[in-house]
Amino acid sequence: MNNFTFQNTTKIIFGKGTENTVGEETAKYSKKVLLHYGGGSIKKTGLYDRVTKSLKDAGVEYVELGGVKPNPRLSLIYEGIELCRNNGIDFILAVGGGSVIDSAKGIAAGMCYEGDVWDLYLRKGTAAKALPVGVVLTIPAAGSESSGSSVVTKEEGQLKRDIGYDFLRPRFSILNPEVCFTLPSYQTACGAADIMAHIMERYFTNTPNVELTDRLSEATMTTMINNVPAALAAPNDYNAFAEIMWAGTFAHNDLLGTGREQDWSSHKIEHELSGIYDIAHGAGLAIIFPAWMKYVYKVNVNRFVQFAVRVWKVEQDFSDPEKTALEGIAKLEDFFRSLGLPTRLADAGITEDRFEEMAEKCVGSGTIGGLKKLDKNDIVNIYRLAR
Amino acid sequence: MNNFTFQNTTKIIFGKGTENTVGEETAKYSKKVLLHYGGGSIKKTGLYDRVTKSLKDAGVEYVELGGVKPNPRLSLIYEGIELCRNNGIDFILAVGGGSVIDSAKGIAAGMCYEGDVWDLYLRKGTAAKALPVGVVLTIPAAGSESSGSSVVTKEEGQLKRDIGYDFLRPRFSILNPEVCFTLPSYQTACGAADIMAHIMERYFTNTPNVELTDRLSEATMTTMINNVPAALAAPNDYNAFAEIMWAGTFAHNDLLGTGREQDWSSHKIEHELSGIYDIAHGAGLAIIFPAWMKYVYKVNVNRFVQFAVRVWKVEQDFSDPEKTALEGIAKLEDFFRSLGLPTRLADAGITEDRFEEMAEKCVGSGTIGGLKKLDKNDIVNIYRLAR
Repeated sequence: MNNFTFQNTTKIIFGKGTENTVGEETAKYSKKVLLHYGGGSIKKTGLYDRVTKSLKDAGVEYVELGGVKPNPRLSLIYEGIELCRNNGIDFILAVGGGSVIDSAKGIAAGMCYEGDVWDLYLRKGTAAKALPVGVVLTIPAAGSESSGSSVVTKEEGQLKRDIGYDFLRPRFSILNPEVCFTLPSYQTACGAADIMAHIMERYFTNTPNVELTDRLSEATMTTMINNVPAALAAPNDYNAFAEIMWAGTFAHNDLLGTGREQDWSSHKIEHELSGIYDIAHGAGLAIIFPAWMKYVYKVNVNRFVQFAVRVWKVEQDFSDPEKTALEGIAKLEDFFRSLGLPTRLADAGITEDRFEEMAEKCVGSGTIGGLKKLDKNDIVNIYRLAR
Repeated sequence: MNNFTFQNTTKIIFGKGTENTVGEETAKYSKKVLLHYGGGSIKKTGLYDRVTKSLKDAGVEYVELGGVKPNPRLSLIYEGIELCRNNGIDFILAVGGGSVIDSAKGIAAGMCYEGDVWDLYLRKGTAAKALPVGVVLTIPAAGSESSGSSVVTKEEGQLKRDIGYDFLRPRFSILNPEVCFTLPSYQTACGAADIMAHIMERYFTNTPNVELTDRLSEATMTTMINNVPAALAAPNDYNAFAEIMWAGTFAHNDLLGTGREQDWSSHKIEHELSGIYDIAHGAGLAIIFPAWMKYVYKVNVNRFVQFAVRVWKVEQDFSDPEKTALEGIAKLEDFFRSLGLPTRLADAGITEDRFEEMAEKCVGSGTIGGLKKLDKNDIVNIYRLAR
């Protein structure tokens, strides 16, 4: 186990009807906030009405900025910053999924940074603080509700980049599994793939002696595997969505990564995909993750055997570890496919003409990866394996 | 799953040599602190020297108060409060295990309360705030390093009582598994029993649909079962102690209790035992927990079957759930015994003459318990089962 520091200060308010406490929670920080949301589904479901009523009841004024798209755009962040500056706003309330929360964090960071907020994402500048952010979560997926990270796409050049600071963790996140009842199945499935990826990107490590976090990760993956099909089969299954929603936060609250080297290659390789093709991040992960696994598993076969046996209950072939490892990867791919997700680029209508460009954007002349270092050629090979 | 709120703000600084950062961490809060510790073992091991050097290097002045005993005493808390008041101290640094940390929290709460601090423990008053507390942990056991609770014994009448407030959670806790190398085996074993109890008191619930927290709990218990014997066999096994130390914090950071009714009867029943007889809390738990299980398991046999099968790998007898359940309880008892712990009151030289008195003190004419409500008679019966 490696040395580590862990702190996650986000307050989680979980369960039925909890969105009705948002006014009270918000009022602890500010009486004038930016209400940030996406394409307007929260208006159809009634969540918008419940949230705004709670804000009004608590005497919290709000200025609205909707329109966040999946793979949130830099231009809207600029708009949000201007809106906040013009209205003397000092708190961002995100009502939505990962994209809305990430956009809110971008605005929050930009409000406290003198230069261009995009410089933070390009690592040309460093944030020292941010406005506080609160969350009403609408989909279990990104884990952004208790993480300090934000992923944003700059339209010009289709560049997708991230930042991460502890002070960007939301002050509170309200998680009511009932809001999942109106999610389209495909979104639930994409969210599930994202959650699985967050766990696996911490799980696949060469760091030895990480039994507790291994077992906690396996516990969380098993819970996902058991509950996602149930939630898809019965979209008003509170119990199934409650497991998925809490697992989604747990997958990305940083506990599962403590004491171990992590490997976020698949996320980065996928980011280039959804940056260019604008497919759902979770769908991209369902395509990329199995391909990455097939490309790297020989570096640490035993870890992939453990994954196969403990997570997928594969009967171990003790004489042939590679066979067991590959069976685990196949089980993951089957799982994603059973959720209605694409597992090949062809399923998403993506051809190979931009592999080089995406790999170049992803890594340039450098490398990424913890379990196995990957250069540009490796990444092209992974895209090829994903065809 | 029940609705819940979860927030744990403690910063964990984990790994080799981390005690050397204590000055830097402490200086963020105060330049004049109370250095609180136990019987002086930290002086023998050199930990005291490293901590005080780090404080001095960071320009932090300290006033010392050692002498905390296991089952920490109210009288020392009074002394600590007076010392802090006389010296203008506004931060308590606990270097020790659960008793030292709990004593530090008592002083911290007492410093911000106008009345007698003991009234807080008697629920005759409520604390609104406390001085900040920092921790350098010396034994994985109590979980007090990231909890908001404090358990203290008033010598007169041998009353053991607890308080719990979110603002009592330590601001930071420094966990270096190397400090465990000098622990006597019996203390390591007692700590392990305490950790197992913290998990089990959350695990044994009637709340349905708590799959994620069930599996996380089972993962943590399995890790303990695998690593405690290794640590006892080789007391300088860093990897084993690292697993135990992180599991000990995880067992009591409140994540495993989210969304479920808990049952802290065994802790309360044990508190009367160690309050009167002054045996180690963990040893008392190793005696009481199996007895409590034998007394209550019929209320929810399936849960005890799950415990037996998933945690202890008992081969399930599908035709006889009670048999499987009892086999799980027997395995737990065997495990405690294999660690050198007493599992019967007789092993600790305790006879039955004060059962009535302890049960009366524990519950009076009321009840305790979540899985099964227990009155005074039930508690006497549990003490009898523990003979």
